Amino acid sequence: MSTPAITATTTLADLGEFGLIAELARRFAQGEHVLIGPGDDAAVVAVPTGRVVVSTDVLVEGRHFRRDWAEAEDIGHRVAAANLSDLNAMGGVATALTIGLAAPPDLPAVWALGLADGIADEAALVGASVVGGDLTSADQVVVAVTVLGYVDGEPVRRSGAQPGDVLALAGRQGWAAGGLAVLGRGFRSPRKLVDAYRRPEPPYDAGPQARMAGATAMIDVSDGLVADVGHLAAASGVAIDITTSAFELAEPLQAVGAALGADPMRFILGGGDDHPLAATFPAGTALPDGWVAIGTVAQGEGVTVDGATYEGPAGHTHF
Amino acid sequence: MSTPAITATTTLADLGEFGLIAELARRFAQGEHVLIGPGDDAAVVAVPTGRVVVSTDVLVEGRHFRRDWAEAEDIGHRVAAANLSDLNAMGGVATALTIGLAAPPDLPAVWALGLADGIADEAALVGASVVGGDLTSADQVVVAVTVLGYVDGEPVRRSGAQPGDVLALAGRQGWAAGGLAVLGRGFRSPRKLVDAYRRPEPPYDAGPQARMAGATAMIDVSDGLVADVGHLAAASGVAIDITTSAFELAEPLQAVGAALGADPMRFILGGGDDHPLAATFPAGTALPDGWVAIGTVAQGEGVTVDGATYEGPAGHTHF
Repeated sequence: MSTPAITATTTLADLGEFGLIAELARRFAQGEHVLIGPGDDAAVVAVPTGRVVVSTDVLVEGRHFRRDWAEAEDIGHRVAAANLSDLNAMGGVATALTIGLAAPPDLPAVWALGLADGIADEAALVGASVVGGDLTSADQVVVAVTVLGYVDGEPVRRSGAQPGDVLALAGRQGWAAGGLAVLGRGFRSPRKLVDAYRRPEPPYDAGPQARMAGATAMIDVSDGLVADVGHLAAASGVAIDITTSAFELAEPLQAVGAALGADPMRFILGGGDDHPLAATFPAGTALPDGWVAIGTVAQGEGVTVDGATYEGPAGHTHF
Repeated sequence: MSTPAITATTTLADLGEFGLIAELARRFAQGEHVLIGPGDDAAVVAVPTGRVVVSTDVLVEGRHFRRDWAEAEDIGHRVAAANLSDLNAMGGVATALTIGLAAPPDLPAVWALGLADGIADEAALVGASVVGGDLTSADQVVVAVTVLGYVDGEPVRRSGAQPGDVLALAGRQGWAAGGLAVLGRGFRSPRKLVDAYRRPEPPYDAGPQARMAGATAMIDVSDGLVADVGHLAAASGVAIDITTSAFELAEPLQAVGAALGADPMRFILGGGDDHPLAATFPAGTALPDGWVAIGTVAQGEGVTVDGATYEGPAGHTHF
């Protein structure tokens, strides 16, 4: 049975719910953990450890992404990366995603399919499959993604940091914020930063490696480094000091700082959306590849930067 | 630390993201399957069978619910019931839910908390806990719920019906559609139907019981009986005939049919939102309590009603 060709002007309403579902199902390859994939009332996924790890993220057009600032595929990658990163931060491995998509009926079908392609491609980086979801109409594009997976061993929580531990970071930080600042001014370069905003590159191996190296606490940095390290400090009941001299100021960050008249360290300390991991390790731990020490843990509470209260922009909050 | 009192005029913006999260966390009791609950990057839930069953539903204000037609608690019950019913339809047991809530900043905080209460109360009916979620601002209220659980044995799929099987139904059907029709005309009675629309009562034990009795295929009836039995028939590659004389026309359905000048059988055949289960069983199976034979399975394709093509309204589709 052939379906009508989908062109740039085909809308979701043209394609219909079941037409869209059929197009989506063809795109979602099912990995080895999937026992029942899309198409039934529910999916079934193997959980070898008998303990499933789960996290949900909701991303809204105009708040988390703009269709004029990134391609649908890029937005799919971002949506999936934000969600997969939560499992990474537990030291886990993602196996399956479900996608809830609410969208206006006049949304171009190619946009929804591009979003799906981006999500599936990002999930494939870690071996995870899109196993199901739900489609409905709404005034605004809202994407809800839930990731399932497991941890081979004990999950690393936010609450285990101890005074004397070292704070370390894995992955890029500040690049996406730099890219967002550039886009906000109507520019498209430095290209590396804009690309980092459009399609983050979370360090997916870093979470399990940190767990195996004995990380005492870990968090996904999504809302801002100071803000998220603050959440880790609060959950652990400790004080954390971040040392700015630990950061290499990458050339594109220096360039955008100069161009916008901003201290590029503000992108690193306040920026979100890159999805690096921050974790604490007992002093003397040999940090796994890709992890860099950026601070210290002490008795007390709150986060300081170079020993002082951080006066920069707070992390992102909703409402 | 005391938080400011929440009044009817307190908005989500007044409460703030973390204030709302704190209020929500207090409401969500954690059941025995929950190993790590809300507050970390991800939750961890026990899956005794090593196979997690997962389903996602998205409900949108103005499409799936109206704030002037039902209380927030009722809408929470409905949202959770729609989702829990998907696990019921696999013959499974739900253990955990995640909730993604996108809402306007001026939404009354009591509405969001009422929604959460309703979801948690419905989940508690089956012993499931709300283990996490995500909150964000949007122009319109969108609720995305994901349910996790497991099946003690083999999941019952949509695709196993065989010619010669009996089609059976467990749970109320047509009541919510009757209630919706009443509300759509500006009435508030018959109260039983309006209540059925506002707060469905899925037969949560019926799914596992059907599985144990040897059900060959099963589906949650959410979009309309003919439509959903049609999905089951298509997945199984069989023809199904529904026998209208098998249905008892409950008194409130007769009353609303008379009041609106409609054949009440149309609510049963076309209506959704009650979340009964439809399942097929080998001929001669002693049906579990609560299951009523309503049709027969034969070779062929499609659904007929009393041997004829059904000309009533089709099931609900999006876009």
